[in-house]
Parts: sequence; C-alpha cells; structure tokens
Amino acid sequence: MSSGSTVADLGEHRLIARLRSRVINLPPHVELGIGDDAAAIAPARSALEIITTDALVEGVHFRRDWTAADAIGHKALAVNLSDLAAMGATPRAALLSLALPETMPVVEFDALLDGFLALAAATATPLVGGNITRSPGPLMIDVTAIGSAPRRKLLRRSGGLAGDELYVTGALGGAAAGLLLRQSGKQDDAAGECLTRYERPTPQLRAGRLVARSRTARAALDLSDGLADGARQLASAAGLGVEVEAEKVPILPAAAAIARAAGRDPLELGLSGGEDYELLFAVGRRQRRGFLAALRRANVRATLVGRLVDDQGAHLVQAGTRKPLPDGFSHF
Amino acid sequence: MSSGSTVADLGEHRLIARLRSRVINLPPHVELGIGDDAAAIAPARSALEIITTDALVEGVHFRRDWTAADAIGHKALAVNLSDLAAMGATPRAALLSLALPETMPVVEFDALLDGFLALAAATATPLVGGNITRSPGPLMIDVTAIGSAPRRKLLRRSGGLAGDELYVTGALGGAAAGLLLRQSGKQDDAAGECLTRYERPTPQLRAGRLVARSRTARAALDLSDGLADGARQLASAAGLGVEVEAEKVPILPAAAAIARAAGRDPLELGLSGGEDYELLFAVGRRQRRGFLAALRRANVRATLVGRLVDDQGAHLVQAGTRKPLPDGFSHF
Repeated sequence: MSSGSTVADLGEHRLIARLRSRVINLPPHVELGIGDDAAAIAPARSALEIITTDALVEGVHFRRDWTAADAIGHKALAVNLSDLAAMGATPRAALLSLALPETMPVVEFDALLDGFLALAAATATPLVGGNITRSPGPLMIDVTAIGSAPRRKLLRRSGGLAGDELYVTGALGGAAAGLLLRQSGKQDDAAGECLTRYERPTPQLRAGRLVARSRTARAALDLSDGLADGARQLASAAGLGVEVEAEKVPILPAAAAIARAAGRDPLELGLSGGEDYELLFAVGRRQRRGFLAALRRANVRATLVGRLVDDQGAHLVQAGTRKPLPDGFSHF
Repeated sequence: MSSGSTVADLGEHRLIARLRSRVINLPPHVELGIGDDAAAIAPARSALEIITTDALVEGVHFRRDWTAADAIGHKALAVNLSDLAAMGATPRAALLSLALPETMPVVEFDALLDGFLALAAATATPLVGGNITRSPGPLMIDVTAIGSAPRRKLLRRSGGLAGDELYVTGALGGAAAGLLLRQSGKQDDAAGECLTRYERPTPQLRAGRLVARSRTARAALDLSDGLADGARQLASAAGLGVEVEAEKVPILPAAAAIARAAGRDPLELGLSGGEDYELLFAVGRRQRRGFLAALRRANVRATLVGRLVDDQGAHLVQAGTRKPLPDGFSHF
C-alpha cells in the first residue's frame, strides 16, 4: 500500500480487517467481538443495560480542515460516553459505524481509529462491532455506546422537584471558545485549553457514577447543547420551570478571555455554547452535602447555578431582575 | 405546519417529539425509552445481549427517487434484524440515528418512520432511542439492533467443519433483479416480487431462532452481499475452503426471468447479487434431519448448495468442472 492510498483503494473488507487487528484485550464479558454478524456480550449482573447513539457529521459537527482525525475519533466516542455518564452508567462496549468519503486517505482513517481507540482504552470501553460504508458526501461517524447501571441508581432526566438546586460540573464555555477560535482562524494564548475542550471533550464518567451510586441527585443530564438548553430540559422533564443565576455560571477563564477578545459576552458562551459535556444535576437541599461529597470523591468541582421552580418557564436572574433564559446551541 | 414543511423548519427537538409520540406500548423490559440521555433495558435472563449496527446511505444503498421513504425505513431496520436472525437472536430493542438533508419534506420523514415502526411492531422490536441531526449531503439512516440469545445456542460464523453441508433459505437473486429493474427504469410482469425483495426484505428471524434452538447448525450468516461472499466468509471463518454447486443455487423464478430479459445470467444474480438477506448455514451430516425439521417448523425452505472443504479457496462446481467462485456484491 502506498502512502497515498485512499479508503476506496482498500475497500470494506480490508478496512474492517485493519480495524479488527487494532482491537485487542477484550474483557471477559465480550463473548463475541468484531467479525461475526453481530457482537455478543454478557450483561452485567442485576443491572440495567444503558444504550445510547450519537453521530458526528462533517460540515455539521466538525470540519476536517479544522480538526485532526484523531480528535474526531476521540470526540465521536466521548459524546456517547457523556450520555452514559449522565445516566450514572459504566461503559461496557461500543459500536462504530463509519460512512467514509472515497477519497479519504487511509492515514486519516487510521488516525481516526487512533483517537477512538485511545479513549476506548482509557475508559475500558471495548469496541465490539460496527459497520463501514462509503459516503458520497460527508464523513459520518455514528457510535453506539452500551453501559450498565444498577436499576435503583439510575440518573434520569425527570424526577426533579420544585426547589431542587441545580449544580453544574467544571467550567463552561471552553468548547464554544474553541469553536470561535476555529471560526476566526486566530491564534490566542488561551487557545490550547479551549481547543482541547472543543475537540477532545472529557466525558464525566466518574462524576456521574459516584453521584448515581450515592443517590443524592434527583435528575441529571449532560450539557451537549449548553447550560440554557440543559436547564430547560431538566425543568421540562419534571414539568417545572427553572431559574439560572447569571452571576453564578462558572465560565472557564480562558474562554472568557477569548469571548471578550471577539467582542462577545462570556456569559453567552457559558449559557448557549454547546459541547462542554459537563453534567447538570438537580439536587434536593437535604442531599446537598452527600452530593458534594460524592463529587469531591470524583475530584470534580460543582457550582450551584440555579434551581427548579414551580412557575413554568425558563428564567435568567441577572442583577436582581428576571428575564427569559436564552436559547441553547443547536446542531440542526 | 404547512404541507410543504421541511425537517429544517421543525428542527431537532420537534422532530424527536414527533417520533416519540409515535412510539407506544413499550414492553416491560424497556425501563426507559426515548427522551433521556440514554435508553435503559433490563437484560434477558441468562442470555447474551446480541448487538449490531448497519447504515443505509443515500446514493450508496438507495436512491430517494427510486424507493419510497417507508421502504427505506423498513429496510434500515430489516438489515439489522437480519444480522440478529443470523445469530439466532430474538430482537429486544432498536436505536435509530438519522442524518437528514435540510430540504427533506416532513411527510417523507413521517413515511420513513412509518416503514421503520411497522416492521418494528411486526417483529416486537421497540424503538428505545436514537439521534437526529442535519446532513449537508445524503440522507443516512444508522440503526442499532439489540437482541438476546441463550449463550450455548448462539449461531456463530466460525465453527464449520470440513464436510459440512451448506444450506441456504428461500430463493436468491430477487433483490438484485429488483435493483436491475430500478436501474433500467423498465416495467416487468415479474417486477412486483423482485422489487419487494429489494426494497422490503424480510429478516429470517424465525428460521434463525428455530435453527439456533435446535443446535443443528455449526455456523451461519446472512446473505447481505450475496451467496458467493457468504460462502467465502463461512469458509474463511472456519479456516477452510468451500465448494458451491452451480446447478443447485435456488434462483427466484421471477428474478431469472428479469435477468434473461436483461441479457444477464440468472446464476450471476444468485451468486453475486446482494441484499437477499436469506440465511446460509453450515450443517454437519448427522444434524441434517434435525436441521431440516427446524426449518420446516419455521415454514422456511432450505436448499443444499455446497459444502465446506479441506482445501483452501472458494470454488464453483459447474457441469462437472471446478472454477473460482465469483466475487460478492460490494457496497463500498
């Protein structure tokens, strides 16, 4: 194979063989990995199987001239593991479905796998199967992640009660600032941290799992489309309203600097910037101490950003006045 | 909403709500369906979870001007259920991941769901989750199907032994003849049956399950890429060679008629025509009677088409001479 080979030169069978040769050390619960009509895994004892699927589409979620192929592979798995994290689940397997432009160089295919498999190894998520097809248009990466969680310790979206406090992990706006940088083509001293947030998000698996096990949160979700969208969804799943306090939203300092340099309000990135993949929890006041203790064990910071309220609607409280919460980030 | 609305007019949240409102009567093993970060299902007792994913891409697997949207939705699920059938598994859940061109009419989105959900209902495969995103190019439909099978009754690809007989269910070439018709734009008296095979394949779930339960087959797979490809793959998984007998390959009469009218050899459609989604089994001679009895209970015909052999390679035996087996069908 010459260094200039494309995925079309190799074809489906050889691409699958190439992928398969990279997948080693399957854990015992994987009875059957890549190479049969389907994969077979032994379910975790007395637990539920947690299943999610999420796709990254070139031109919608990423650009191949902006983002290295290994970062794309990483992110495709990360966004799915983030969904498992938001349920309090432990990953057990992943499937990778690729639609590849014919002209895609094999080195780019290999790099995409590098990024995917490195995160898979780091999170003990064996790749057990998938599909490879040609795409007459964009590169598409569809991942299915499967995890397990004890039935009574599942973190759902619904279940929040009026008065529950909303806590968010980490700091927000980093991914949106990374996207701003890519869009502007500018370099910035703060670029590194924000680009990493945008291109190689870290799923909060340990935080989700420890909070779920502690049973101290009534509801949770991951912030794929921003805090404003997440707060709305937690409220709507509970049939309630929500208040977010502008002054309390934790903005990543590097993101705030990039926002200001671009003439944007840092709060806007914190509220409406998508793809931070932090977790948002609804916590009853009596559970607050146990909840914060669980997050400390995960070595993750949490910030109180608002509460669920009885009156319908999504509100932002800023300088003592209530106004409508802005919209979230939309990929569509 | 006007009758001319597109999926972009509705946006992701309303499309998901539209889909969700169509999913009713979830079976008890589905703890959590569409609407959370992930779905949750209770695994089947003392069984393995069987997982597969397969995508249909516009311009590669279908054309929207050839095939009605409900047939596309049907087929996207059917090809995944066919993989479960080939493992002897019973479906338990499906995920649907859609990348939709912005200009796609909402009526087409609805029709796609109609086809998907009708087959889901007919096969007791609840839709438990998924993803909807925009596509800047082709329509893509990625489905993950999850089933269960008793551990000791799993139909694998590997496991065939030299001397095992190869049996194929049903008759072949129908889907390839349907594709020929679509390509030529011609009408034909035999069109209906072949177009149905091409556009609305029936996954052989009952046949796969009954054979698996009877433990009379050593190996199996489904014929997504034709008999020649399937025979090669069964042989290769067993580290053996294979012989297919040209005269015994069961060709659908309507497909043979269409092939002849197009100046093509019906055998070529039977061997290299993809997408029939029949099952191919490797059966030890002592198990033959039990195997055929299991298929009779499934009300499915099986034809002996060849055998696994000790010498490497894939051979076609025709008029007493051995020649190389042609290639299979490739989607790449």
